[in-house]
Amino acid sequence: MTKSRPSAASGAVTIAAIADEVGVSTATVSKVLNGRLDVSALTRARVEASLERNRYRRRSRRLPTGQIDLVFHEYDSTWAMEIIRGIETVTVPARIGVVLSQLDGRHRPPQEWLDGVLSRRPRGVVLVQCHLSEPQRRQLHRRAIPFVVIDTDSATSASVPTVGANNWSGGLLATRHLIELGHRRIAVISGPTDVLCSRARTAGFRAAHEEAGLPVDPALVRHGAFYVATGHEHAMDLLTRPDRPTAIFAGSDMQAMGVLRAARQLGLHVPDDLSVIGYDNLPVAAWTDPALTTVDQPLRDMAGIAAQMVLDLADKIDLATSRIDLVTELVVRETTAPPAHLRQNTR
Amino acid sequence: MTKSRPSAASGAVTIAAIADEVGVSTATVSKVLNGRLDVSALTRARVEASLERNRYRRRSRRLPTGQIDLVFHEYDSTWAMEIIRGIETVTVPARIGVVLSQLDGRHRPPQEWLDGVLSRRPRGVVLVQCHLSEPQRRQLHRRAIPFVVIDTDSATSASVPTVGANNWSGGLLATRHLIELGHRRIAVISGPTDVLCSRARTAGFRAAHEEAGLPVDPALVRHGAFYVATGHEHAMDLLTRPDRPTAIFAGSDMQAMGVLRAARQLGLHVPDDLSVIGYDNLPVAAWTDPALTTVDQPLRDMAGIAAQMVLDLADKIDLATSRIDLVTELVVRETTAPPAHLRQNTR
Repeated sequence: MTKSRPSAASGAVTIAAIADEVGVSTATVSKVLNGRLDVSALTRARVEASLERNRYRRRSRRLPTGQIDLVFHEYDSTWAMEIIRGIETVTVPARIGVVLSQLDGRHRPPQEWLDGVLSRRPRGVVLVQCHLSEPQRRQLHRRAIPFVVIDTDSATSASVPTVGANNWSGGLLATRHLIELGHRRIAVISGPTDVLCSRARTAGFRAAHEEAGLPVDPALVRHGAFYVATGHEHAMDLLTRPDRPTAIFAGSDMQAMGVLRAARQLGLHVPDDLSVIGYDNLPVAAWTDPALTTVDQPLRDMAGIAAQMVLDLADKIDLATSRIDLVTELVVRETTAPPAHLRQNTR
Repeated sequence: MTKSRPSAASGAVTIAAIADEVGVSTATVSKVLNGRLDVSALTRARVEASLERNRYRRRSRRLPTGQIDLVFHEYDSTWAMEIIRGIETVTVPARIGVVLSQLDGRHRPPQEWLDGVLSRRPRGVVLVQCHLSEPQRRQLHRRAIPFVVIDTDSATSASVPTVGANNWSGGLLATRHLIELGHRRIAVISGPTDVLCSRARTAGFRAAHEEAGLPVDPALVRHGAFYVATGHEHAMDLLTRPDRPTAIFAGSDMQAMGVLRAARQLGLHVPDDLSVIGYDNLPVAAWTDPALTTVDQPLRDMAGIAAQMVLDLADKIDLATSRIDLVTELVVRETTAPPAHLRQNTR
């Protein structure tokens, strides 16, 4: 009597068949599927390889837990809290718990994090500005755990469901506003160069210059972390140049706070001597002095949409689209005005 | 043959005995223990009553999940994020997941929230400024789920493990500093009156006046939510009085930001015309203009201690003490100075 083993293509391979192929017990295969650590690394790798080869996909009869995993590449206080609040607009009514974690600034989750997810068996995973490796994606797929990425630009491949905001357009709108006010020397402090959203915003900044027929001075294009201290540091350097810019477009509201502080320390009045634009439109932007002109990034909406997408995927509901970019808008408050020489001319 | 039923006092009552007493299946008792909602409210109540009567306490052979529940009465962006970060100093190395929830400003969790906890079976629960009712406490106790409260003052009974900070002392230190600088008309904007920490801080404010032999003008004692807008509103009112205060002690750094904004709108220079003190020492306090003098509340430490306490309780480790108050300290930055009339006298 020959053992019937379902063909790989049928997708109906069983845990028993995997155990048989690898030469381990079904309990061991089950442990690997659930991210248990009491299996040797070698055995785990062999089981994973067999699961992969046989295109195993869990079709659990057990209900998934009533929770999702939410992972940040790092916490950036107010920014992260806006995302959490947006996620909860969906999870609270659905009575879904949210398990929170962060990767200490890494953009690629370590395997330990993924093992934690596998053992928790959430309905799905929402990743904020971090990305799974291809093997990690396949590991989730095999366990029927869907995931969605919240990313402020499309660093992820088209096959990964992603919610973002249009950074290029944000960079364009902010810079256009400054050019329309009459600024000709405009600096940009963007995020780190290895973050795609930074490059998209800088590209928007350049596009606004191009359409106005203005050159971009490379000395005025800066990159750095999205923190107050980074904004402060770059602004101190930019504003003490003999040919200092009359406007600075910052990569985040936090950076913009650092720019405002540098301006004050140097005795420059905002907006009379310097115009400043932030990015994100966090609640704090309305309370800086003067109140910050900034690019509104609809973080709560982005997060709510991502949470709904992952729950729909868990319920096997087809997504209308797997790639959503929300619109960014410029919110003009008190930190932008025509440059001093133009105001004097018109007096 | 008589059925042997363990006596209530032994604590060794089984699910079967409970099922027998209530006249339901063991599966139903198990569902109630796990917070499942597919049991009628009446049956749940009867099962809970029987569990209570028999002093049932779960002694699970199954491992508890590798996660704890963290619940806020509300999210207050940076403040909440400091707590989350503190919790993670303990949970990340221990590979414990954190399930986040918030109660939309309620200080008493609704039963739906507790049902969610029961179904998740966490190792323990950390509550931030919210309190379980006595029946809710007993429900957790029966399921061997320990809990710890992070509270900025001792609203909870001595029997509940709590981590706090000394608010009375914070109020005293801040007010003493202003009195020592020479201020005689000092206003306080504290939190809501129904929050005990607000009353403790106001008491500290009064104590500093008493020890200096100064009267407290009741018109200068205000209460309100811990938000920027509340600080702004009270400050606008206080600072437009003919006998306006020369210093304002705010209930939070957010309130203090509102006070700074009101001062600017009224053309008052901080600290020359007005001294301002905040509360919490959030990261933003170092970046306001001028940088904020504030009372440091060690939120991260408080949260880390609470997380460790709840994990210890889950591991049946005896706590050295169930009530810890951390020390608050005054951080003097740029928003406090002697009042104008004193500075002029010494020139």
